Order: sequence, then structure tokens, then C-alpha cells
Amino acid sequence: MTTVFSSSGLRVGRLFRRETGLSCMVAFDRTLLAGPVEHAIDARRACEAIVAAGPEAVLLSPGVLKSCGDLFADNRAPKVVLRIDYPMVGDFTLTGEEHHRMIATPAQAQAMGADAVVMCLISGYDDPGREADNLEAVAEAARQCEAIGLPLIVEAVVWGSREGGRLDGERIARVARIAAELGADLVKAQFTGEAEEMRALADSCPVPVLVLGGAAMNDDEALARFTRDALASGARGVIFGRNAWQREDATAGVEQLIEIVHGT
Amino acid sequence: MTTVFSSSGLRVGRLFRRETGLSCMVAFDRTLLAGPVEHAIDARRACEAIVAAGPEAVLLSPGVLKSCGDLFADNRAPKVVLRIDYPMVGDFTLTGEEHHRMIATPAQAQAMGADAVVMCLISGYDDPGREADNLEAVAEAARQCEAIGLPLIVEAVVWGSREGGRLDGERIARVARIAAELGADLVKAQFTGEAEEMRALADSCPVPVLVLGGAAMNDDEALARFTRDALASGARGVIFGRNAWQREDATAGVEQLIEIVHGT
Amino acid sequence: MTTVFSSSGLRVGRLFRRETGLSCMVAFDRTLLAGPVEHAIDARRACEAIVAAGPEAVLLSPGVLKSCGDLFADNRAPKVVLRIDYPMVGDFTLTGEEHHRMIATPAQAQAMGADAVVMCLISGYDDPGREADNLEAVAEAARQCEAIGLPLIVEAVVWGSREGGRLDGERIARVARIAAELGADLVKAQFTGEAEEMRALADSCPVPVLVLGGAAMNDDEALARFTRDALASGARGVIFGRNAWQREDATAGVEQLIEIVHGT
Amino acid sequence: MTTVFSSSGLRVGRLFRRETGLSCMVAFDRTLLAGPVEHAIDARRACEAIVAAGPEAVLLSPGVLKSCGDLFADNRAPKVVLRIDYPMVGDFTLTGEEHHRMIATPAQAQAMGADAVVMCLISGYDDPGREADNLEAVAEAARQCEAIGLPLIVEAVVWGSREGGRLDGERIARVARIAAELGADLVKAQFTGEAEEMRALADSCPVPVLVLGGAAMNDDEALARFTRDALASGARGVIFGRNAWQREDATAGVEQLIEIVHGT
Amino acid sequence: MTTVFSSSGLRVGRLFRRETGLSCMVAFDRTLLAGPVEHAIDARRACEAIVAAGPEAVLLSPGVLKSCGDLFADNRAPKVVLRIDYPMVGDFTLTGEEHHRMIATPAQAQAMGADAVVMCLISGYDDPGREADNLEAVAEAARQCEAIGLPLIVEAVVWGSREGGRLDGERIARVARIAAELGADLVKAQFTGEAEEMRALADSCPVPVLVLGGAAMNDDEALARFTRDALASGARGVIFGRNAWQREDATAGVEQLIEIVHGT
Repeated sequence: MTTVFSSSGLRVGRLFRRETGLSCMVAFDRTLLAGPVEHAIDARRACEAIVAAGPEAVLLSPGVLKSCGDLFADNRAPKVVLRIDYPMVGDFTLTGEEHHRMIATPAQAQAMGADAVVMCLISGYDDPGREADNLEAVAEAARQCEAIGLPLIVEAVVWGSREGGRLDGERIARVARIAAELGADLVKAQFTGEAEEMRALADSCPVPVLVLGGAAMNDDEALARFTRDALASGARGVIFGRNAWQREDATAGVEQLIEIVHGT
Repeated sequence: MTTVFSSSGLRVGRLFRRETGLSCMVAFDRTLLAGPVEHAIDARRACEAIVAAGPEAVLLSPGVLKSCGDLFADNRAPKVVLRIDYPMVGDFTLTGEEHHRMIATPAQAQAMGADAVVMCLISGYDDPGREADNLEAVAEAARQCEAIGLPLIVEAVVWGSREGGRLDGERIARVARIAAELGADLVKAQFTGEAEEMRALADSCPVPVLVLGGAAMNDDEALARFTRDALASGARGVIFGRNAWQREDATAGVEQLIEIVHGT
Repeated sequence: MTTVFSSSGLRVGRLFRRETGLSCMVAFDRTLLAGPVEHAIDARRACEAIVAAGPEAVLLSPGVLKSCGDLFADNRAPKVVLRIDYPMVGDFTLTGEEHHRMIATPAQAQAMGADAVVMCLISGYDDPGREADNLEAVAEAARQCEAIGLPLIVEAVVWGSREGGRLDGERIARVARIAAELGADLVKAQFTGEAEEMRALADSCPVPVLVLGGAAMNDDEALARFTRDALASGARGVIFGRNAWQREDATAGVEQLIEIVHGT
Repeated sequence: MTTVFSSSGLRVGRLFRRETGLSCMVAFDRTLLAGPVEHAIDARRACEAIVAAGPEAVLLSPGVLKSCGDLFADNRAPKVVLRIDYPMVGDFTLTGEEHHRMIATPAQAQAMGADAVVMCLISGYDDPGREADNLEAVAEAARQCEAIGLPLIVEAVVWGSREGGRLDGERIARVARIAAELGADLVKAQFTGEAEEMRALADSCPVPVLVLGGAAMNDDEALARFTRDALASGARGVIFGRNAWQREDATAGVEQLIEIVHGT
Repeated sequence: MTTVFSSSGLRVGRLFRRETGLSCMVAFDRTLLAGPVEHAIDARRACEAIVAAGPEAVLLSPGVLKSCGDLFADNRAPKVVLRIDYPMVGDFTLTGEEHHRMIATPAQAQAMGADAVVMCLISGYDDPGREADNLEAVAEAARQCEAIGLPLIVEAVVWGSREGGRLDGERIARVARIAAELGADLVKAQFTGEAEEMRALADSCPVPVLVLGGAAMNDDEALARFTRDALASGARGVIFGRNAWQREDATAGVEQLIEIVHGT
């Protein structure tokens, strides 16, 4: 069989550290959905602190990329993962209604300098028609990403009013697999904390799984344990947001996370 | 009359074995709708097992084609039939609501390496407006397939809440004919088990009819009988999924099916 | 005033026989909506029988054109009129809901070899918003047909739940005129059987009116009388379906109809 | 300041008579909405009669332009103003529901030979969402007209179920100004009959206002008075339909109107 | 790090006075929504008066730009900021229903001569689905503006029936930040009158904030205090409408405002 060159494969590879085969990404897109939150009032200062620590990549909104693009205009700077959708699950409208909208196409994201893009596939909307629209939007983005060789990270999650607060490993593995079948290059998924559920998730998902963080735990030891457990059970890395930067010294927080991911 | 060259005719021909005029295809798109299911947890291993048996073609989701494309990058490998729609009839949303969405255009499928595409025409949705949208999507895909010479297989089925569990031969023949009138190059249809209904279906459908399998029977003799009955009554082949690979030795399962189709 | 060349005018002319100025067309698109019906189970055989009689044109679905295109690939063969819409008025969904969808654009129809296209303008839907959408689709097709010089036949009919079974000459003339105002090159309309209503319809419609047939009468004398009455009162031809071919000898049926139209 | 050339300005100028600075247009688009009406049964004969009188322009539907285009293919013939929308306010569907649809784009109208286009901006729909859609369609047409230098006449009217039969000068002036702010080159508006309301309307509208006629008054003296009052109070011309041609001698009717507009 | 040239950055710079780093803009788009209002009956005269005072820029509707474009065709004339949306929050339809529509694309605005564009992001619609559509439209305009180097000003406001008459500083800062995250180059926001709320808003918004004016105060001293308070707490300028021109001498009103902004 001949070797096939794939530009998006090349770019997926650049999101991982060769020595460990893992990736430590920082999500700094919380303010897109929630507005100014603690330790992210000044978007640029927070961004500088994150970049200084040197994670593999940072998740940004289009606006923050525009304000802080120069921080990433450097040979060794973290890669830019641009969020291209706006998942409203109880947040923006402050009404509880669940909506999903696109805020950039893959081609627009690439034109802005993105090295990869991220969007949600949410299982659990109260209106199944919106769920179907979300799924269609993921497929459409996947096809467009393939055409321009841009990696697509799908945040495949079990959220929404039909799910309530449950964290069901089987449901998570199901939506992760569907995201991969639709064409995601990487999947960002919830880790229930149960090692065997992480293993089942990683084993049944044909593309690398990165674990998301959620609300700040404010407990570094618990965070380290959570991270190591996920990686030990098949996760290929993390995409943490508030657990990385929502603290007094964001650089230290991200450095500590990098150490956990790559140093162990 | 002059002979007319048709690129999609050429490609339809390549889906059949010249000696028998029949086609044995394997559907491996179940996990797109249902997530990881038994014997398909590891998508690549299952795919390797299927390919090893050498069916005429394999039905895949875009994501599995991306993960396993190299298995098909070979002169004698099975052809790739890409699923370009996402039929939600009680499955994805887990709510019972019926929706239908596209996940690739024919041109995108062809760009990904597909030799043919498959999509559903479903008769029986509870909301007739969605049925009408499905029909329009089939027609649109047919026109686009014609423009690029790509064969379109329409899975013309009687499903959905308006139908319940019925398996009505007349209704099946009706939707199959309508699929062909809309421009399908091949029709994938349900076989009720009644030989005369298969004959009526094949006789009234102006394009070749391939029979689908459904849930695993776990009874190889019944499966063989079912297959031979269909072929004896006019079916031009089969597209079986779980009945082919959902077993300990998927390669053996597919080889046995090929033997039934072409060896008799 | 200078003479203006119009490619769609040229093509409209080719749908009529110069000697009589009339047109005898056969509609073979019933199976698109109803699936296999008596005497049309084998689409190709029915099509061969119709073509053998030599009408001016035959109305086909995209799928039948694909299966039987070779029958029309001849200098003297009937012209191909492709149906480009799918009017659901109690038919496809079998639920009674009324929907309307497009199944080809004029440009796609032309690329497939169509000499003209036909679509419905239906007055009487229970949902006036769908009626408005239908009207907009007719206008859009008319503009596209003009751009590529393809004749558009609008089947301007009073159907649907708001109309019930009425056959009101004034309403028919109204929708026919509106179809012509929107840009139809030819109008296919219902004939109530009343000569003065046909005359009023023909006089108030700025483009030629062709009469449609409806369900098989199974009475050749009544059919001949119906046809002659329409032509004597201003109709420029007929587009008959089941009354032409739904019989043992379809060729004879169509030949007889041609004789009535052109021989009198 | 330099002089700026504007192709749509040039074409707007051609709709007015230089000597008087006024315009006398005839609206012959009634049959698009209402089907055959008295004195317009034969579209071509009515059109010939109107053209013979020599108004500045005639409003036509796409279909009538196609049937009668040769009448306008002459150096001195009236200009063609094509209606590009279909306002359903109690008319087409005969149900009372209010809908609005486009039947041509400005570019399609220009390709058909139109010298200007006309469409409605209706204030008073029972469904404000449809009102918003209408407004958006006007803005979109304005932008497209600017791109191709085609004058856009907006019929800015207070109609619909929310307004009832009222004829409120303030409301009329409001919608006329909004039409101009959206980018109309000319506004076609209702004249309440009150001189000071016409003056207020003309003064507050930054583009020329042409007065519409409505149902036939069947009283030539009243019509002349109505027309002179409007022009004396700032109207830059008229666009009359049934009051011009719905009579035994349409040519005389239009000639009389031209005399009133330009001769006084 | 290399210096990066950005055409939209260059154009944003031109909207500010270099000496003070501030911008004094005049909004003259009220009549687009409300029709003729006092002191804006004659659009051109009002526009001339505003331009004569020499603010940095004037907000206009497409129609007024077409009527008064020559006033801006001058080396030293104010820049043109074109409104490209139509926010209906209790205004146009006069029914209380809230709708949002686009009236120009950024590319169309640029073709018309706009130096920047403005549109609303409204938090508080009664229907959250419309809020989501508004947000998507802002993101889409932002991406298109980036592609053509045109500055986008987002009017990020807390309006609508879900908000009532409240003026909540935290909510205002939230929607301003979200506007910037979506990609606004400048934000136009409400000032509650509380200095610390203005400071929090300016500090948490990564792009310059311009303060809007609202209804005429008819109290020049209060207006000056309001303006100085905003600027002292971080606002980078003002976009005032009725408070600038809705008075006997509009030129004097705007000159006075410029003096307050730049002279202090």
C-alpha cells in the first residue's frame, strides 16, 4: 500500500507532543458564552499568562484571537484552536432555552489563522429537531474541514434538559463514537471519573479522545488525580479551561497541568 | 441508435460481479446511528475483517472511511459506498421523534473517495412534511449524482411511527418504484420473506433491487434461505450488515454470504 | 419592429405539429406519484408502446428518463417533457396532507436532455402559505427557464382540500391566467366539459392551453367527444395520461388520440 | 465637489418627462393578482391600447412582458417597469391570509428587458414576522438594484388586516420614508385626498413620490381633481391602473391622464 | 515579533482623532426605524447641518447615504458608518413583537462607500430563538467584515420585553464582552450614569467602547456631564443621535458635543 499524504493529518499531528504522544490544551472560550468572569476580566492579560506556560494549543473565540493574535504569531507559540459555534445550553439567553448557532465556517477560521477548530455535538436537547440540526452542522463542518485540511475537534457531550445532571459513561461513549463517525479528527469528551468508563470510551472511539475539565475544582490534588486517571485509561490529553487559568497565577496553573500531562 | 457512454453506468457496473450479475455488499454504517455495538467496538478491526472476505462493496460512514480508508486503497479492494444521510427513526435522539438530515453531498462523498453513495427514502414518518423533505433531498442528491457520474443507492423503506411494525409488500414496492422514478440507480429494499412479493417488487422497479438484512438472525440456515429466496425471485444482490459481521468471526460470516450470493 | 430570436420560442414551436398548430402529448408521470399502477408496472414496456405511436411529446419523471432515455435518442422521437416537481395532494404520504417539493431545477432537466419541463401551480391547498410557496417556485422556475431557453409548462389546477371536488370554470381560468402572468410558456389546465368555459379559459390566457385528462374514462367515444369539444373551443392540444396508455394496447390508444387531435 | 455618474440615476431620469419633471405611468399588473378582469381579458389588446397612448412607463408582470415585449421594442415606446413581487393581501389564496413572495430578482428583471422594477412594502400585516420579511426583501432588492444600476420603485402602502380600511396620512408618510431609507429610488404611495397630507408626505420623503390609483372611480372629473391635487401638493407623478385602462377606450383613458399630468 | 498590517485596523484608526484618541460620532439613523421625526423631516438639510460641524463619523441608513452621499465625497468629510440591520424592538411593526433583519451585507455596504458598518446585538428579546439568530447574524457580519477589512461596530444593548426598562450595568458589560468575543471591532453600549459601571464595562471589553445617547435630554448641562463622566471612566467616545441633532440648530449641537469630547 502506498503512503497517503493528508494535510489535516499533518496538522492533527502538530497538536500533540511527539515525545509523549499526548496533548495539553487550554480552553479560553468561557467568556464567549458567559461574558467577563473572574480571572478573565482582562482577556489579553489572561491570554498572555496562558501562552507563557506553553501548552500545545489554546481554544479561543474569534474576538479574542483578533485582540491577542500577536501572542500566537511566533514559531514556538501554542497552536490556535478556534471555536466556531455558540452552544446555548442555559447560558446566553439566560432563559433556559437550548439553541445552537455557528459563528464561523472552517474556511473563515482558517483565514483568521486557526490551526484547528472546535464545535459541540450535544446529546440531550429538549427539542430533538435542534439536536438533529446540531448533528447536521457538525457533519457539514467536517466535510468543509476535510476540503481545506483543517483538523476538527468535536466536543461530544451529554448535556441539556433531557439529560439533567447525569454523567452516564455509556451515553458519553455513544455520542463520542457518533462524532467520530461523522468525521471528527479529535473528540473532546467528559470523563466520569470511572477508569473503566474512560477505557471503554477510548477503545470505542476511532480517533483520539481529549478530556474536558468543567467548573474549577479548586483542589490541585484532585485535579492531578483526575487527569492522571484519564490519561492512564486511554485519554490522549486534556482540554482544561477554568481548572487551568481561573486562579491567581494562571501561568503556574497551566505549567502544573503540562507537567502532569507530559511529565508522568 | 448510437451507444451512449454514461460514467455513472460504468460505475454502477463495477458494483456487480460480471459472472453472476449479482452484488454482495456489506453495510457497516450501524455505528453511525447507534454508537458502539457488539462486534463493532473497534471500528478498524471490524472493517479489516469485512474487507478480508472480499465483498463487492462496503457501506461506511464518513468517519470510518477516514479512519480506515487505507484498507480500500487497493486495486482489488471492495468498493466504498458512503452513507450521506442520517435517518433518525427512533434512534439518535432516543426520544422517538423522527428526523432526517444530510451529512455529505454527493460531490463531497466523491472527493472523499466514494464509489457510490447511499441514502434513505422513508415512507411512514409521523410528520408528512418531513417525509416530503426527505423525498426532496433524495431528488436533489440524484440530480447531483448524475452531474458527477456517481451511483446513488436509495434505501427505500417503510418505517416510522405511521407504519408501526408492518411489513407490507405493496407499500414496499410502492416506495421502491418512487425511489427509482426520482432517479435512484439502485434500490435497497426490505424483503418480506414472500417470494411473490419479491418478484412483484423486482418487476415493478426499473432499476436493480438489493435486499437489506435488518437485525442479526443468529441462524445461518435461515439467513441462507432468506437470501436464496430473494435472489431467486428477482433481487440482484444483498446489502447485509449485522447478519454479516455481528458474530465472532466476521470474515467467515461475510465469506459465507458471498458464497451464498455468487455460488448458487 | 425588428424580429426577435428567442430560443425558448423556437423550442415551444417544436412541441406543436406545424400542419395543425396543435399538440398531442402523453403524460407518463403517474407512477412518480402513485408507484406501480395497472399497465405501468413495467415502465420501459409502457414507454416503448407510447413512443411507438408517435405523440408530439411524453411527460416523464427523471428516473424513467434515465431508464428509457435511449427510446428518445432519435431524430423523429417524441420530445421529452420532464416533471420537475412533486405535488402531494393526498397521494404520496397517504395522509391527506398537502405538500409541494421540487425534484429538479430547469438547468438540471436540460442537462438530462429535457426539451421542456412541467410543474404544478395548485389553487386550493388547505394551507395558504404552501400555496404561496408553490407560486414562488413556479416564478423561480420560469425565470430560470428563460435564462436557458427551456419551455415551461405550468399545470395550473384547482385541487386540494379547500376546493373539494368542485370543477369551477372561473377558478380554473383564474389560476391559468396567473400561471401565464408568472411566465408559463404553456398552460396545462382542466376542462370542465362546458364549451363556453373552455372558450373563456383560452381567450383569457395569453399562452396556449393544453387540456389534461385525469382518471381513465374507459369510454373511447366519450374521450373523443371530450377532446374534440376542448379543441373546438380554443384548446391547443391535450396532455393525456391514463386515458391514453392505461389499456391493453397502449400504442393503439395513443394512435387513436393522435388521430382525434390532428385528424379532425 | 466632483460630479458623480450613477447608472441608476440616469435610468431614473428616463422615467420622467424633462419638460415637466413629472411622470405618468400606467399599472397593468392587476391580472397577475386577480386573474382575468373586465377590460383586461385579452392582455395583448389592453397592452396595445395603453402603449398607443404613450405614457412614460407601464407596469407589467413577467408573463405579460413575455407576451407583449415586442410592443416595447421601440425607441419611443414606454419604459417597462416589471413587478418582481407577489403581494397576497386577501387576493390570491382567497382565504384572507396575508403572504408576500418574490417572483423575480432585479438581475432577472433586467435580463428580461426591464427599465425599472416595482415591489411592495406593506405596513399592516396581521403577522409582524411577515412584515419584517417583506422589509428585508425590499432592502435586499435595493442592494441588488444598486449593484446593477436598475431603479427600484417601492410601493409603500398601509394595507392589511391590522390596518383595516383606514387611510391615515401619518402612517402613509411613515412607511414611505422608511422605504426611502431602505434605498428605494422612487416611492409609489397612497394619496388620502387631503392636500396637506400629500405635502407632508412629499416633504418628508427624500425621493420622488408617485401616487397610486386604486379601484376605478368611474368619474373622470373626480379622477382629474384627485390627480391635480396630488401634483399640486408635491407628488411627482402618478401610477394609475384600473382608473386608466378599465374602460371601453383604454387609449383615450390613458391619453386623458397624460394630458392631466403633463398639460397642467 | 513582526508588525502585522491589518486593513480593518487601519480603518478603525481613521474613526478616531489622533490627538485625543477619542471619537465623536453622530447617529442619524433614527428615521430608518421611526420615519420622519422632528428636526429630521428634511433628511438632507439635517445631514448638511451635521456634516458642517465636522464629527468623526455619521451613522446613516442606505437610503440617506444614497440621497446625501455627495456631502461625504470630500477629503475632510466625516466618515460614513452604514447601518446594516433593522432592529424591531417595539418600533416598526407597531405591535410590540420583536424581530431583527439584515438590510445590507458588509460587502454591499462597502460597495456603497461605507467606511464602517453598525449592527445590533440585543439581549432581552422575548423569544430566545430570535436572540440566537441575532447573535449568529453578528458573527456572520464580523467574519465578512474581516474578509474585506471593514470595521464592524456592534451596538451591544440590553433591550426588549424580557428586560423591561432596567439599565443593569452587569448585563450591559456582559453583552458588550460577548459582542467583542464574536469579533466586533468597536462596541456601542449604554452608559448607566454610574462611573464605576462604565469603568467595569471598559475594563472588561477588549475593544474600544463608544457610548450611545438615547432620547433627547433637552438639557445641555446634563448631557455634558453624562459625556464627560463616560469618557473619564474609560469610554473611547460617543455615538449620539437625537441629543446631537434634535434641536433648532443641529450644527451648534454637534459642535458643542465635539468640543466636550475632544476639548476636555
